Amino acid sequence: MIKTIPGNITAPKGLKAGSVHCGLKRNKKNHDIGIIFSEQPCKSAALFTKNQIVAAPIKLSRKVVKDGMVQAIVVNSGNANACTGKRGEKDAETMALLTSKQLNIKANEVIVASTGIIGHHLPMAKIKSGIIQSSERLGNNNTHAINIAKAIMTTDLVPKHIAVKTKIGGKEVTIGAIAKGSGMISPDMATMFCFITTDAAISLNTLRSCIKKSTESSFNQITVDGHMSTSDMVAILANGMANNHNITSSTKSDLALFQKALDYVTLNMAKEIVKDGEGATKFIQIEVHEAKSVSDAKKIARTIAESPLVKTAINGEDPNWGRIVSAAGYARVTLDESKLKLSVNNITIYKKGLPVTPAPKRLSSVMKKKEITIQLHLGMGNKNTTLWTCDLSKEYVSINADYHT
Amino acid sequence: MIKTIPGNITAPKGLKAGSVHCGLKRNKKNHDIGIIFSEQPCKSAALFTKNQIVAAPIKLSRKVVKDGMVQAIVVNSGNANACTGKRGEKDAETMALLTSKQLNIKANEVIVASTGIIGHHLPMAKIKSGIIQSSERLGNNNTHAINIAKAIMTTDLVPKHIAVKTKIGGKEVTIGAIAKGSGMISPDMATMFCFITTDAAISLNTLRSCIKKSTESSFNQITVDGHMSTSDMVAILANGMANNHNITSSTKSDLALFQKALDYVTLNMAKEIVKDGEGATKFIQIEVHEAKSVSDAKKIARTIAESPLVKTAINGEDPNWGRIVSAAGYARVTLDESKLKLSVNNITIYKKGLPVTPAPKRLSSVMKKKEITIQLHLGMGNKNTTLWTCDLSKEYVSINADYHT
Repeated sequence: MIKTIPGNITAPKGLKAGSVHCGLKRNKKNHDIGIIFSEQPCKSAALFTKNQIVAAPIKLSRKVVKDGMVQAIVVNSGNANACTGKRGEKDAETMALLTSKQLNIKANEVIVASTGIIGHHLPMAKIKSGIIQSSERLGNNNTHAINIAKAIMTTDLVPKHIAVKTKIGGKEVTIGAIAKGSGMISPDMATMFCFITTDAAISLNTLRSCIKKSTESSFNQITVDGHMSTSDMVAILANGMANNHNITSSTKSDLALFQKALDYVTLNMAKEIVKDGEGATKFIQIEVHEAKSVSDAKKIARTIAESPLVKTAINGEDPNWGRIVSAAGYARVTLDESKLKLSVNNITIYKKGLPVTPAPKRLSSVMKKKEITIQLHLGMGNKNTTLWTCDLSKEYVSINADYHT
Repeated sequence: MIKTIPGNITAPKGLKAGSVHCGLKRNKKNHDIGIIFSEQPCKSAALFTKNQIVAAPIKLSRKVVKDGMVQAIVVNSGNANACTGKRGEKDAETMALLTSKQLNIKANEVIVASTGIIGHHLPMAKIKSGIIQSSERLGNNNTHAINIAKAIMTTDLVPKHIAVKTKIGGKEVTIGAIAKGSGMISPDMATMFCFITTDAAISLNTLRSCIKKSTESSFNQITVDGHMSTSDMVAILANGMANNHNITSSTKSDLALFQKALDYVTLNMAKEIVKDGEGATKFIQIEVHEAKSVSDAKKIARTIAESPLVKTAINGEDPNWGRIVSAAGYARVTLDESKLKLSVNNITIYKKGLPVTPAPKRLSSVMKKKEITIQLHLGMGNKNTTLWTCDLSKEYVSINADYHT
């Protein structure tokens, strides 16, 4: 039984957050820096962007997570500290060091994360003041929770957060998460920001394998615009304060319960990101069935999802399904046209290489729905995949043509 | 010496065209079917889409071109005859057969091409009437030329055509071309429609190698929206009526002259397609220098060109160069951040992994230009590539959200 409860990363035992506006965002009401802190040191695992150009905080945090112990995350929005060379690396180190001093913890147990514009040095005076103020405001009530979720937003319209409770080995275990991401979303092995906390007791190796597995079927299966960020990060902290019997690869049923709850949290966060995709008006689920391999299925799903012609057709509520089939055709996967079947929200429109005629009447009313499911059957095997994306609207162009200057 | 002359595919000796409105397009003023006819049978070579899902006319024309001899092309816009199964294949055959009867030529020497909406059967009564009328209107004056160029247009705003004269072995040789394409443009090995005619005498093998070479550096180096069509086709007809000494792989200098003129024609057509890209307001040249291999350079150039974040930044005249560098970072090519240099219209803004500070003042005025050149130096080797694309505008979304229904 997984039960959703109010709050987010401060919901598990021993977790606190604090955030403020330090001057990175123009609107003074918007927090732009914050700290997530655990009373006890946590086992931690994280996944980072596969982009060859990575932001300075990613370089630092990779090292921090390698050792497996983390007690705090310091995060800012408004500036990604990417493409900033040695000075940028130094600035990320300063953030970790100052945070550790303020919290009286080890500097190499602080994850640093930055998101926002690329190619600008951080205004360190503002950042320092922000870290000091955030550390003085730590707490775990609803205001702390909502503020930290908002502090990591860039072009996001809504905060994305969740907390769930489940029972593992007779003990109540809580998992909380906050996420951000709206544009530059096409994660591969990791994604944007999602910070997850739990009071579960779990071994480091098991935690690493759990977060990898959850990410594979959630964040790695979403795309907004096909542009992979320099700063993607999914990180989980587990402080063990739920006092459950330690979860390891040997405690099969406890592990299954934890994985299930974690999958629930990551999938929820991933879908929230797509729903809040820049300019999104539709939530699109793409299912590819009967592929020879999962890899083939994923290639086709992603090619359909990233075709601007498919995305604009759905934006226009236009059942122009030829664009979906032709996108599948250039995914570099062998196809047999005469075996293809395409349905939208379970209405079949193309079968055995031929349009269903007359075109189903319900189709145009289905296209008006907020949630569209595209179901492509390849007839080549028995592997499947599901991927989530959103449409491409004029608002996406507005948001991104006017973002910087 | 390559000299541009008025006209297009009817400019070479012995070439004629005829076209009419047969009812595929809504506006009766717009021609939607046409025939290109050579008095003499032509050697012919063509390149077709690499999409796994190909339109019926592509299947037929592949066979026609295999034999190397062609005397006519019949082409319609408004309906792609794609995803239409056996009936679609039969319809394409009927188009070739009727055309051959009307012109008193062999049916297996007629190329068939269709462009427009995918997944609808051709209205064959209209098509038949269109072929008969087109064959009765054949001619080679300016009106015939402009009409055939317009008859192949779909969302194109302007007809794309060219004719050039050059001297080969003391004889005047003419090459003419018409092209269409505005959306669903991301050719690989071939592209949209470009029909090229010449009166050059040239061996079949040489013609095949020339058109392949020209396409590689022109149509294969453009992208509008990254969506590869089911119907892409580049075809050249050479009827030998210029009476030049036959061009073969042994006549090195004549071959070089012909290749140069053909390159000129294909590059011109390719750039015209990008400039008329759906909703395009900017023409963008992407140069990648100092790559380890041409393939690496092409991957990076294409990833930059197809990033909606790069395209919208340029649409917004916003020097948000972090998007360009981060796109290069996810092209699946090994990079060394500290060796990168990025310039826009020769203004360097990022060097050795660091932003040039203060940001060059001329940058924002440069972003206002109609033609933007992005120059990325990798510092990894000595291979280069150039690719052409356009920006992503609200108009692109409008055009494609409202295209079908």
